[in-house]
Amino acid sequence: MLDDTLTHVPGFRVAAIDAGIRAHFGKPRQPDLTLIAAEGPCTAAGVFTTNLVKAAPVLLDMARLQANPNAIRAVMVNTASANACTGDEGLRNAEQSAAWAAGALGVAPESVLVMSTGVIGTQLPMAVIQAGIPDVVAALRPDGWRDAAAGIMTTDTRPKFAAVRENGVTVIGIAKGAGMIAPNMATMLGVVATDAAIPAPLLQAALRQAADRTFNCVVVDGDMSTNDTVIALASGASGQHFDAERMRHFQPLLEEVCAALARAIVKDGEGATKFITLHITGARTAGEAKQIGNTIATSALVKTAFYGGDPNWGRILAAAGRAGVALDQRALSLWYNDLQLVERGTPLNYDEVKAKLIAGLPEIDVRLDLGMGTAEATVWTCDLSHDYVSINGHYRT
Amino acid sequence: MLDDTLTHVPGFRVAAIDAGIRAHFGKPRQPDLTLIAAEGPCTAAGVFTTNLVKAAPVLLDMARLQANPNAIRAVMVNTASANACTGDEGLRNAEQSAAWAAGALGVAPESVLVMSTGVIGTQLPMAVIQAGIPDVVAALRPDGWRDAAAGIMTTDTRPKFAAVRENGVTVIGIAKGAGMIAPNMATMLGVVATDAAIPAPLLQAALRQAADRTFNCVVVDGDMSTNDTVIALASGASGQHFDAERMRHFQPLLEEVCAALARAIVKDGEGATKFITLHITGARTAGEAKQIGNTIATSALVKTAFYGGDPNWGRILAAAGRAGVALDQRALSLWYNDLQLVERGTPLNYDEVKAKLIAGLPEIDVRLDLGMGTAEATVWTCDLSHDYVSINGHYRT
Repeated sequence: MLDDTLTHVPGFRVAAIDAGIRAHFGKPRQPDLTLIAAEGPCTAAGVFTTNLVKAAPVLLDMARLQANPNAIRAVMVNTASANACTGDEGLRNAEQSAAWAAGALGVAPESVLVMSTGVIGTQLPMAVIQAGIPDVVAALRPDGWRDAAAGIMTTDTRPKFAAVRENGVTVIGIAKGAGMIAPNMATMLGVVATDAAIPAPLLQAALRQAADRTFNCVVVDGDMSTNDTVIALASGASGQHFDAERMRHFQPLLEEVCAALARAIVKDGEGATKFITLHITGARTAGEAKQIGNTIATSALVKTAFYGGDPNWGRILAAAGRAGVALDQRALSLWYNDLQLVERGTPLNYDEVKAKLIAGLPEIDVRLDLGMGTAEATVWTCDLSHDYVSINGHYRT
Repeated sequence: MLDDTLTHVPGFRVAAIDAGIRAHFGKPRQPDLTLIAAEGPCTAAGVFTTNLVKAAPVLLDMARLQANPNAIRAVMVNTASANACTGDEGLRNAEQSAAWAAGALGVAPESVLVMSTGVIGTQLPMAVIQAGIPDVVAALRPDGWRDAAAGIMTTDTRPKFAAVRENGVTVIGIAKGAGMIAPNMATMLGVVATDAAIPAPLLQAALRQAADRTFNCVVVDGDMSTNDTVIALASGASGQHFDAERMRHFQPLLEEVCAALARAIVKDGEGATKFITLHITGARTAGEAKQIGNTIATSALVKTAFYGGDPNWGRILAAAGRAGVALDQRALSLWYNDLQLVERGTPLNYDEVKAKLIAGLPEIDVRLDLGMGTAEATVWTCDLSHDYVSINGHYRT
């Protein structure tokens, strides 16, 4: 069970500082350089954006996790610049900033991973980062996780932190999200750390499954980022060893932390005023159910209707119909919470007052039954508000 | 060349009246029942939504054009209710309203097509429509096209009308659009009428090609409607006969009218403040170029950046990278009008003042070169504004 009072994971020290990276880009000052440092080599795993335009830190981390999954020592995160679409200079900068962090920590350069988030197309301010690294290393402490959760925020309004401790094992996760959140792979930055001892291939499989069931069920705006990354680190400091058989005891802890972070990302979606859970049932396959859920969750018309508190359910059926999945419109049934609106393609004489009431709630469960099979999927999403437009119309400038 | 002074097409009479359909749904009164009637049998063609959730009038018109493409006499259009997701009752209502119009015109029931646009999931107010039909028939006149263009409007702010006359042949088109405009097939309602004599199969092929080059290049919000329909009618009243060989003289007239209507739809996109032309060049195939163009055009982040006048070009590359088309981020080059921002994956030291100036213009040409081949595509789109959210947050209620 989630435990908000947990403050540290044995084997890790964490810090976030205001290094002046945001100030360099003319943004209001707040912590912008975060470091998660392990006291010894960790096994590590990562899931990354499937966008073909990948940021430099994504390319660096993918290569390092492939080559060196058993001795990762740190993850450094900067905000304000995504170091994406920055060409060869961007790659050199990612590598150089990791090397500086490694030097300050006294570890091998290839044991440091980096993440960047912020505006696409700007080079990292290397002198500012270089100057900040000794300070963030000096600030490292075991209970710095909440600072780190705040340190990686961009347009997020709240830090995202989740922790569990069971049977002598702790899992703590932090994440940032808010916008550019799409239905395909780790649409965010996140770090999950545990003191369990887990072989790297098992950790990778566990993170992949957890991401598919949590982060990949989340839609804010359908825009998949160039930088999406979730890294898992296992220090082994608990002395608890997990083999393939015992992993079924670790998997639920990991998924609980990831699910809490994923839900927190949707609830803090840019401009979001409502949390919508879409259940797609009666599908032939879970993949088709998810495809339909994602299409509904990215529909501007569906999302603006939720924002307006308007039970305009026709837009949900219309979105389902263009999802690229074969379906029969005469088999579709629809519910808002416990109120059925459509039965096998025909609108019911439902209570319009109750429908309006449900559509006005801050959390709404929508179920669309396709009437074709027994597979299902769930997607978490939010509405599309005036504030989303304000935030994204003027984010960069 | 487009000629705004044209008022009629020989062989057709047209009218639009306020039949009280909008009033029935509590909306402010304006013309809501439109009739395009031919003096004799027309050859006819249609292109329809590819949404699998198809409105009743779409299903009816598809069947009638299949069975009877050589003797269509009329198209009746109502607004305020889309007659979509209305089950068997909706199908019966579409058929019945066509039959009433046929009776009033003294033509065969199966020679009348119907279109509906408005809210999904409400049944047509049949008594209101029945009462209005004699009035709209009585109002028919040869120069009623501009009234008809206004009569089919929903959230449109301007009627959409285009006409050409060349070598003794006239083509007039009307359309409605504004929202639920997506990159796949006739995302709108439209009627194009001509006095040319054209065999139905040639008219169908011509309309399909024209739609692919015009209406299908248009994106407002990526939401494909359940009702999208464009119908072409050829009266033959000009005495000008077109066979397969001569069609190359008719095709440009049809495409000119359709292109004008398509551009008008984007310019009147819900809440739109900017008209963006996306040129995707250097692709392997035109289909891949269009897929990338459509993905960029539906990106909420790209569209809000245009709204904010922010040259946040990284979002364009990020959208291209998730379009499902294989590409090399190191081969991408990007221009805003004549200002190059990115050269083969690396940002240039462009003039930021000039970039801001271009991003603030009401019409912007964006070119993304993929550096892979010689195929290309063009997509017309608009920005995503506060007004889009206002309009769609409260459209129904």
